[in-house]
Amino acid sequence: MVLVVRGELRLTAGKTAVQVAHAAVMLVEAGRKRNADALAAWFAQGQRKIAVVVPTIDDLERVQRLARAKGLMTEVVEDAGLTEVPPGTKTVLGIGPARAEEIDAITGNLPLL
Amino acid sequence: MVLVVRGELRLTAGKTAVQVAHAAVMLVEAGRKRNADALAAWFAQGQRKIAVVVPTIDDLERVQRLARAKGLMTEVVEDAGLTEVPPGTKTVLGIGPARAEEIDAITGNLPLL
Repeated sequence: MVLVVRGELRLTAGKTAVQVAHAAVMLVEAGRKRNADALAAWFAQGQRKIAVVVPTIDDLERVQRLARAKGLMTEVVEDAGLTEVPPGTKTVLGIGPARAEEIDAITGNLPLL
Repeated sequence: MVLVVRGELRLTAGKTAVQVAHAAVMLVEAGRKRNADALAAWFAQGQRKIAVVVPTIDDLERVQRLARAKGLMTEVVEDAGLTEVPPGTKTVLGIGPARAEEIDAITGNLPLL
């Protein structure tokens, strides 16, 4: 599972952590419904998560398109906007769960958060 | 759901986000097994998460004792230790899911991450 944070928003560490956690939970729920085998394998391997960053929303959406084109599950967190950003702002893209190699092919060149 | 980060470890933003996400997923899985009603209510209300910080492991364990004494579910993330901390280091305490008032009674005075 890779969590791709939208850097241009310059969220605080706390806000970022919560948005990343939203994405992880959304992917677990999606996996339970649509890809239970991949989810079980991911849990069995220690529920690995990696947080990376892209500069802009355009980059985030490009990475999402690439991931979907490879058949990977994606979820995008839209913030309720009570604090740091306007309602509906896309903050984090989550990809997976899937084998690390599959996701790394798309996100392996992105800098760690 | 409240995620209590151990400040003294001075983890990077990325590491912190991943540890908080681990705690959130662990609580969702625990809730599914042990408190499905609370979990469903939490999802229905937008899966609210708050990240706060305590200084030390003693503080983290004290908050955990208080939460458990109130009957709240808790999970503690122990890091695999591949990067920033030794293996088995306790990084984040997760509490919930439960009604916000119940958790706030214990963590409401802690600073936001």
